[in-house]
Amino acid sequence: MIRRIRARTGRLTRGGLSLGIGDDCALLRPRPGEEFAVTTDLSIAGRHFELDMHSPQVVGHRTLARGLSDLAAMGARPVVAFVSLGLPRELTLKQGQKRAWVDQFYDGLLALADAYKSPLAGGDLAESPLTLADIVLVGSVPKDKALLRSGARVGDALYVTGRLGGAAAGLARLVELTRTRSWGRPSAIPKKMRDLLAAHLHPLPRIAQGLWLQRKGLATAAIDLSDGLSTDLSHLCEESGVAAEVDAAALPVHPLASLEQALHGGEDYELLFAAPARAKLRREIAGVPVTRIGRIVRRRSGGPAVTLRTDQGSVPLAPRGWQHFS
Amino acid sequence: MIRRIRARTGRLTRGGLSLGIGDDCALLRPRPGEEFAVTTDLSIAGRHFELDMHSPQVVGHRTLARGLSDLAAMGARPVVAFVSLGLPRELTLKQGQKRAWVDQFYDGLLALADAYKSPLAGGDLAESPLTLADIVLVGSVPKDKALLRSGARVGDALYVTGRLGGAAAGLARLVELTRTRSWGRPSAIPKKMRDLLAAHLHPLPRIAQGLWLQRKGLATAAIDLSDGLSTDLSHLCEESGVAAEVDAAALPVHPLASLEQALHGGEDYELLFAAPARAKLRREIAGVPVTRIGRIVRRRSGGPAVTLRTDQGSVPLAPRGWQHFS
Repeated sequence: MIRRIRARTGRLTRGGLSLGIGDDCALLRPRPGEEFAVTTDLSIAGRHFELDMHSPQVVGHRTLARGLSDLAAMGARPVVAFVSLGLPRELTLKQGQKRAWVDQFYDGLLALADAYKSPLAGGDLAESPLTLADIVLVGSVPKDKALLRSGARVGDALYVTGRLGGAAAGLARLVELTRTRSWGRPSAIPKKMRDLLAAHLHPLPRIAQGLWLQRKGLATAAIDLSDGLSTDLSHLCEESGVAAEVDAAALPVHPLASLEQALHGGEDYELLFAAPARAKLRREIAGVPVTRIGRIVRRRSGGPAVTLRTDQGSVPLAPRGWQHFS
Repeated sequence: MIRRIRARTGRLTRGGLSLGIGDDCALLRPRPGEEFAVTTDLSIAGRHFELDMHSPQVVGHRTLARGLSDLAAMGARPVVAFVSLGLPRELTLKQGQKRAWVDQFYDGLLALADAYKSPLAGGDLAESPLTLADIVLVGSVPKDKALLRSGARVGDALYVTGRLGGAAAGLARLVELTRTRSWGRPSAIPKKMRDLLAAHLHPLPRIAQGLWLQRKGLATAAIDLSDGLSTDLSHLCEESGVAAEVDAAALPVHPLASLEQALHGGEDYELLFAAPARAKLRREIAGVPVTRIGRIVRRRSGGPAVTLRTDQGSVPLAPRGWQHFS
C-alpha cells in the first residue's frame, strides 16, 4: 500500500522538499529568509467524521483542509503534508467493484494537496479498530512575518473572510439527509443546497487570503475559524491580552444558517483577523469577501473576553464552539 | 489540559524553535547550512502498546523514542516534537490519589524529550474511544549530509549498534509477567531481568551514534531497527538496489534473546548501516558497541534481498518483522 501511495506522490523535490516518501524521514529546507510553520490535527471516526455519512474522498479532503487552514492563519505558503492513518484491515481491501476506502481517501486528500501545492512527503500507516487520520502540515513564511494570535491591540478593527455558519448548517442538513435516507440523485439536489453541503464537505482553506495579509503586513493578529467564532475569538483575545466586541448585525451569516450557527458552529475555516481601524482593507481579498465585524477593546478584570452587541444591548459571548472533550 | 501541558513546556525559543505551543502553528528555522528531517509515527492501544501492561510513562517514552530513532537513522539532531493524542475522557481525570493517565503519559514523554533536547512544540488533543498517539519529530542535519537508506554499494560492510532481540525478549517476558501477575516488588526482580525489560520498555534511540556517523561521513546508508533486522535490512537493500548477506554467528544477540528474536523481533531501535569495507570504524560509538554483521552484495534478478549465512550454509532471510497490517 505504501508503494501505491508513493507511486502517486513520487519523489518530489520541488519547493522546499529535498527528499520525500521512502526513507526514515523527509528532508525539508526553507528558502533563504523563510522559516517553517508546522501544525498537526487529529481526525477520528465518530468524532470528526462518520464513515456512514462522509465518503472517503470527503474525509481525505477535510483531513487536509484542517491543516491547511492553520497555515492560512499564519500567512504561510504550504510546502508539504504528512498523514498518519489508522484503519481497519477491511478499509484497505477492494469492495466488490469499488476501490478500497483507503485509495478513495487518498483521492480526496491528494486532489486538495495538488490544488494547494502541498505534496504528501510521508506519514505512517497502522491497523486500527478505529479509523483515524493525523495530518501534519509544513508551510513557509518569511522570518518574523508570520501572522500570530498575539498581536491584536486596543482600537484594532476585527474582520472575517467569507460567510459564517455554512459548515454547521450544512452538517445539520447532511445529518438529516442521512437519517431520512433522502439523498436521491446528486443532480436532484437544488444548487443552493449543494452549496450549503459543500461548505461542510469541501471547505477551501484561505491560504491566498492569509498570504495576502502577511505580504501587506496589515493584520496585527489572525486565527482560523475551526472551532467557532466565539471560541476562536476568545483564543485570539487571550493570546493578545485584550477583549473584543462583535456587532451581531454586521456578521456575514450564511443565508441558510442561523446566527447561533455563525457564532458557535465551527469548521467554516474562514480567517478572523485584527487590523488597525484606519487600515485600508479591500472588501474582497483574492476573490473572497471581507467583512468588518467588530473591534478590539481593553480587557477588564473579571470581564468577558468577547461581548456580542445586538439591538437589545450587549451580552457576554461565552466560548461555545468545538470542545476537545465533550 | 492544553494550558497544563504548555506550562510544562513553556514558550521555548532555543535551537531552531522560534514559536512554541499556543498559536495556529509552531515556527521553526534551521541553522544556516542545515535542513530539517521530519518523521511521524502512530502508536495505537492494542497494537503498539497495552494499557494493562504498559504504564502511561512507558507509553509516553516509547511514543517519543520511535520518532527519535528515525532522526537517529538520518544522522539528525532533534529540534522539536509534536504529539497528537486521542484518548477516552476518563484518562484525563485523576484516579483517586493518582494523577491522570494523560499527565503521567506526558511525564514519560517529557523526561525523554528533555534528555534528548527535543522540546514539545505543539500537537492536538481529541476525545477518542481508543487511546492513540501520533508523534512528529523535527530534526536538523547539514544540507546534503543526511544518512539515507539508498546509498549502500556492493562491497560495503554491514554494521549494527548495540545488541539485537532484547526488546522482543523483554516483551515476551513482560507478557508472561502480566499474564501470571507475578510482578512482585520491582526490587525483587533480578537486575538481569530488569535490563531485559528495559530494552523493551525504555529504548534509548541512537541519536549520538547517528550524529557521529553523519559527521564522520563514513556510512553509505543507514536505517533504524524498528520493524526487525530482516525487514529493515530488506528496506535498505530495496532503496539501494542491492542485496545483503548476514553472518548468523556475528550477530550481537542479546544474551537473554533467541536468534529468531534478533532477526525478526523489532523495536530494538538500534542503527543498521553500511560503510566501505576498508573504513576504520571504532568498536564503540559514543559508548555503544558496534558489530560488523555482514556485507552488501550484488542483487541477482529473482534472488532474495537478504541471505543468512550459517554453519549449515546460506538460506534466504525473508522479511518477517513487524507488519503494518497483520
